[in-house]
Amino acid sequence: MTAHSAEPGKPAPPEKGDKRERILDAAEHVFAAHGFFAAKVSEIAERAGVADGTIYLYFKNKDDLLISLFESRMERVNAHLASHVAKHTKPKEKLDAFIRAYLALVKEQPAAAEVLTVELRQSAKFMKGQPTNPKFAELLRLLATIVGEGQAAGVFTDAIPAPVAARMIFGLVDEMALAWLLGDKTPESAPRGKKFDIVRAADWVGALITQGLERRSTQ
Amino acid sequence: MTAHSAEPGKPAPPEKGDKRERILDAAEHVFAAHGFFAAKVSEIAERAGVADGTIYLYFKNKDDLLISLFESRMERVNAHLASHVAKHTKPKEKLDAFIRAYLALVKEQPAAAEVLTVELRQSAKFMKGQPTNPKFAELLRLLATIVGEGQAAGVFTDAIPAPVAARMIFGLVDEMALAWLLGDKTPESAPRGKKFDIVRAADWVGALITQGLERRSTQ
Repeated sequence: MTAHSAEPGKPAPPEKGDKRERILDAAEHVFAAHGFFAAKVSEIAERAGVADGTIYLYFKNKDDLLISLFESRMERVNAHLASHVAKHTKPKEKLDAFIRAYLALVKEQPAAAEVLTVELRQSAKFMKGQPTNPKFAELLRLLATIVGEGQAAGVFTDAIPAPVAARMIFGLVDEMALAWLLGDKTPESAPRGKKFDIVRAADWVGALITQGLERRSTQ
Repeated sequence: MTAHSAEPGKPAPPEKGDKRERILDAAEHVFAAHGFFAAKVSEIAERAGVADGTIYLYFKNKDDLLISLFESRMERVNAHLASHVAKHTKPKEKLDAFIRAYLALVKEQPAAAEVLTVELRQSAKFMKGQPTNPKFAELLRLLATIVGEGQAAGVFTDAIPAPVAARMIFGLVDEMALAWLLGDKTPESAPRGKKFDIVRAADWVGALITQGLERRSTQ
């Protein structure tokens, strides 16, 4: 996170793209560095190279900024996941591609992942709105569609409703992301006290889920 | 939650047990009713029937109160889960018992579950300390022990390290608890727009996990 911190008195140079995007980029870094509650709108403004008041032309308050950031990043995440899933035709491979792409993204973009997974949970407003957030619903729908395809093809059990399976799969990958981001040192997977390998963990997650959903001949 | 709210000007009558326990009980209700950040220490004091200052004799601050509440409730949860697990001898049945007991507890004690699952995520201090919280570690250890027993007995695959499997299982049940507490209305599982049945969901969670961990003859 340190590499992203703005140097005091030295705001990030104005970038291409509109102000709204610059504010969102700045908010991502500041939220990840200091946490949502400790983050100051003035620091976000400084980093974005705009006046404090300008932020309120685009966002109602800090909560709105976090939710807008979530929606912006989730849009990218959903598009990224969908493109990886689309490379495959078999439901099991699609599910595996989803899991791999999700966990690889956490490793590649820890600041974005920290905002999505850690900071967001700390905004009461979002938590209460979570079940109906359209971008989160879209991610769950992508998962449910894959499970549904597998059920239709007779590959996945239909004993578990597809939307419930989707929620379970999300819970599982989200927990792995959280454990990794918070620096969990699961002994067996990280023998030398280092963070476990989240990309390697995708094998374990994929194995548990695809085998767990498999349709048995006895059904 | 409404049923638990203290009526204005009418503190809960002093109960048996020491002040610390009364404060924790009051905090559980107030955190669940208003959320951690909106919760006022004065309201907790009023509900517990103690002076505001008394709270600070037992707890450093609101964060400390939340963490202490977590530890107190997790101690009960761990004991409850362990007793249900102990009724069985086969690893699969133990795992199933754990999942059922966990989800049933969420339904029976929604205020406690809301504090553990929703509010706790909103305390930055706890989030950062989560990997090493001893009570949380104990819950994960109980799960890892069951998985390890299944691996030793050749029932569960040993392709997934037991502590990683434990974390994945926790993520899954925790997500189901969260979805239920936040009032998720998963269409297929709740046809009339009602909350899904979290006790029924234990069947699905158990099915996914025990089949997912099963050792294959081809290994």
